[in-house]
This record gives sequence, C-alpha cells and structure tokens, in this order.
Amino acid sequence: MKIKRDSEIEGAVVEMEGAKDVTMKILIGPDDGSQNIIMRLFTVSPGGHTPYHTHDFEHLVKVLAGTGVVVDKDGNRHDLSPGHNVFVEPNEKHQFANPHSEPLEMTCTIPNPDVK
Amino acid sequence: MKIKRDSEIEGAVVEMEGAKDVTMKILIGPDDGSQNIIMRLFTVSPGGHTPYHTHDFEHLVKVLAGTGVVVDKDGNRHDLSPGHNVFVEPNEKHQFANPHSEPLEMTCTIPNPDVK
Repeated sequence: MKIKRDSEIEGAVVEMEGAKDVTMKILIGPDDGSQNIIMRLFTVSPGGHTPYHTHDFEHLVKVLAGTGVVVDKDGNRHDLSPGHNVFVEPNEKHQFANPHSEPLEMTCTIPNPDVK
Repeated sequence: MKIKRDSEIEGAVVEMEGAKDVTMKILIGPDDGSQNIIMRLFTVSPGGHTPYHTHDFEHLVKVLAGTGVVVDKDGNRHDLSPGHNVFVEPNEKHQFANPHSEPLEMTCTIPNPDVK
C-alpha cells in the first residue's frame, strides 16, 4: 500500500507542443507499483490549455477545483466545474482550457502506455 | 466524449458482505465506452466501512471530501483526508472506514475486470 498527499508530489510543467501553463503530478503510477493504470493531477492556470490533440489512449477526467472548458472533436466547448467527469475515447480530439480566473484542477487517469 | 456530473449518476448501496453504509456510483465505465478502466465514487457514511478483504485487482484511490482511515494488511490504520492518494496492490488486504462525523468521499479506480 502506498499513501501519498498531493502536496508531497513534485509537479512538472507540461512541455508538450500546444500546452500552455499546465502542470502535472503523477499521483499513482508505475513507481508506486501500479502496472495498469496511471492517475495524474493536472493544474491548468488561468489562460492556460492542454494541446488540442489526439492519442491512442483514453482519458478518464474528474474536475476537482476551478472551472474551465473541454473542447470536443467538433470544436464545441463544454463548461466544466467540480463534479464533472469526462471520458475521452482513444483517438478522439480534445483540449482542456481555462479561460477563467482560478486554477482548474482535475485528475486525468490513463492506461499505462507501456502495458498496452 | 461523455460528460457527466456526479449528481446525474444514480448511486447504489454496496451490498457486499462486510460493507456498512457505503454507496457507490460508476462515474465512468464500460457503459460510457471505457473498456480498460472504471472510475467509481464511493461515499462512506459516518460509522460505515468497506469490507476488510482482498481481491486480485488494484485500487487507485483519491480522497475528495471528509476524513476516514484505510486499514492496511497488518491491521494498521492510516488517517485519510482530502489530498490523500492510496494505491492498494492486487491481493493486498485493505479496508476503508469512516469513524468521523462527515461523509468520506473518494474515487476508487480499477481495471475493468472483464478485460484482465
């Protein structure tokens, strides 16, 4: 069993092209013994966004704090606030953005790409 | 893409032997198109607990609200509050309990047992 607080985990700036003012923490992953699933915490600062992109794995997202939007494959924007859950299918285009004034915090859980 | 609020999802009482005053919602699962991963929301009422048990899949837990404890395989109790993340290995004995006065809310994410 591993028990960790968010505040004990070091965050990293997401350097991916198309990302702006996003940091990520791996809450639970392979280093903790989790072979199949990786749970990450993303913080999108006001004015920031993730890339508008696709990849071959799914996202299971839970909004924890702040507000923002998710952009779907057709470019439609959907408001997000705490209590929202978003499933993004593999290869489905998507973007998370924060046009508001408070940081948007959300968990984004994925399958371990090394196990796929 | 599926977008759902916690409040739109119907909860079910956990009827498993050894569970007391626990409800579960499937936030994202196979019905949403998630083949590999299931994200559930558990609410443990004051005085309630999950079974002290084992199973062959892992748990990735994030505490969202309230306080409680997780009991490890040796019977040791570890305090939990929002910001805590718990990884329970496959076949590791564990129990979540709420000896306090506010509901304990946590996400508990697992691999889809039908895909293992």
